Amino acid sequence: MSRTEGESLISRVTRVLEAFDRDNESMPLSTLAHRAGLPIPTTYRLVTEMVKYGLLDRAPDKDIKIGLHLWELASHGNRGVGLRDAALPFMVDLQSAVHEVVTLAVLDGQSALFLERLAPAQTTLEAGRIAERHLLHASSSGLVLLAFASQEYQNEVLSRPLERLTDKTVTNPDQLRRLLADVRRRHFVYADGYGRPGWTGVAVPVFGRKHEVVASLSIVYRSRDESPQSQLAAMRTAAAGISRTLTAPY
Amino acid sequence: MSRTEGESLISRVTRVLEAFDRDNESMPLSTLAHRAGLPIPTTYRLVTEMVKYGLLDRAPDKDIKIGLHLWELASHGNRGVGLRDAALPFMVDLQSAVHEVVTLAVLDGQSALFLERLAPAQTTLEAGRIAERHLLHASSSGLVLLAFASQEYQNEVLSRPLERLTDKTVTNPDQLRRLLADVRRRHFVYADGYGRPGWTGVAVPVFGRKHEVVASLSIVYRSRDESPQSQLAAMRTAAAGISRTLTAPY
Repeated sequence: MSRTEGESLISRVTRVLEAFDRDNESMPLSTLAHRAGLPIPTTYRLVTEMVKYGLLDRAPDKDIKIGLHLWELASHGNRGVGLRDAALPFMVDLQSAVHEVVTLAVLDGQSALFLERLAPAQTTLEAGRIAERHLLHASSSGLVLLAFASQEYQNEVLSRPLERLTDKTVTNPDQLRRLLADVRRRHFVYADGYGRPGWTGVAVPVFGRKHEVVASLSIVYRSRDESPQSQLAAMRTAAAGISRTLTAPY
Repeated sequence: MSRTEGESLISRVTRVLEAFDRDNESMPLSTLAHRAGLPIPTTYRLVTEMVKYGLLDRAPDKDIKIGLHLWELASHGNRGVGLRDAALPFMVDLQSAVHEVVTLAVLDGQSALFLERLAPAQTTLEAGRIAERHLLHASSSGLVLLAFASQEYQNEVLSRPLERLTDKTVTNPDQLRRLLADVRRRHFVYADGYGRPGWTGVAVPVFGRKHEVVASLSIVYRSRDESPQSQLAAMRTAAAGISRTLTAPY
């Protein structure tokens, strides 16, 4: 294996995997090649190999999809999965108490990555799903994660253009700094319509072994004239339970 | 990219990913090379590239682990994840009703692959975790999946040596055939100590669009002298709810 060829192949594998998303869960080879920006013969060879090792699957209609074996491998030894295992029982309890969408997110790269989501069967909210990413400044989960990130990281995020998702999204850096200071002081954020019109997110931090924030726990519900105080107590109880599990001696 | 080099690189990537498991969630490069059966320089080059694209991560102590981005990519467009999304609300309801470990598994390759697991915070059962696999003939989930698989597939499984995990594991092919017929007739299996001494699993099928069995829903609890009838009604209710969600027109 020459170094250059090895390098470019890993990047091609990544491009193939990145061609799939919620709206494109399976596709014919030609679509996959197009979305990955690769020639069809190259894509064909890669797909054949990746199917052989279970990284991709061929559906009965010959369309190509992500392999279940890849999901299995990715779930092994993943900090997200360990965190999620610890959090899930408490998220179940919280959802039973508040009957709203409950999510768990971590800071990854420049966004909040959702590790887990429990939703009432009848929810109409199509957001915060597993493996979905949200903007840090425009989601309750993201604001908690950003508030407890390093000053350097915050400066970096705030120095970039901040996208406005709704007319309530806070995009002014100074206003955002005050909001983040408030989140650090009060240990929660109440984000009414910041990311999606008509939906409110409330998020609290989950602490790890060194009292660092490892995740944010949030609930999301249709905006209404009501203070989140009662839900907030339940959320803090659940977050404390998760933190205790994470910091327990094994 | 020559065909041979491409092929062998994908196989090496897979070997690197397969070196990780629950007991080995992160490891130094030399251990990884050893577990993957690859030379250290090759492993070093692969790891460097895979870290660059987020397929692997380097922990603060330099140990190597599975990347969160790989988990994210693998979760996109995965039949397991879609099924799990549909099932989770009903699993939460079921767990609230029965207060036992609740799992969801699918048939993959020659085993039952666990997609989801909800456990009471205080459970002592260390099995059936997400992305874990169990033997088909020695787990309640596996027996349901095997019972509803094709005759050809069943013959193949039953023609191989059947491992005995406990003194209650059914390993006689004829006895197993009768058990599977019983599962098909009654739509549930009661597996007391088949996979793990002292633990009982009860599993029911989850049906998809074409009335095919797409998953098994199970509860697992410490064996006791009590019929599973009351839990079974709750399990069937939850399984029917999942099936209805899966078969609902979108």
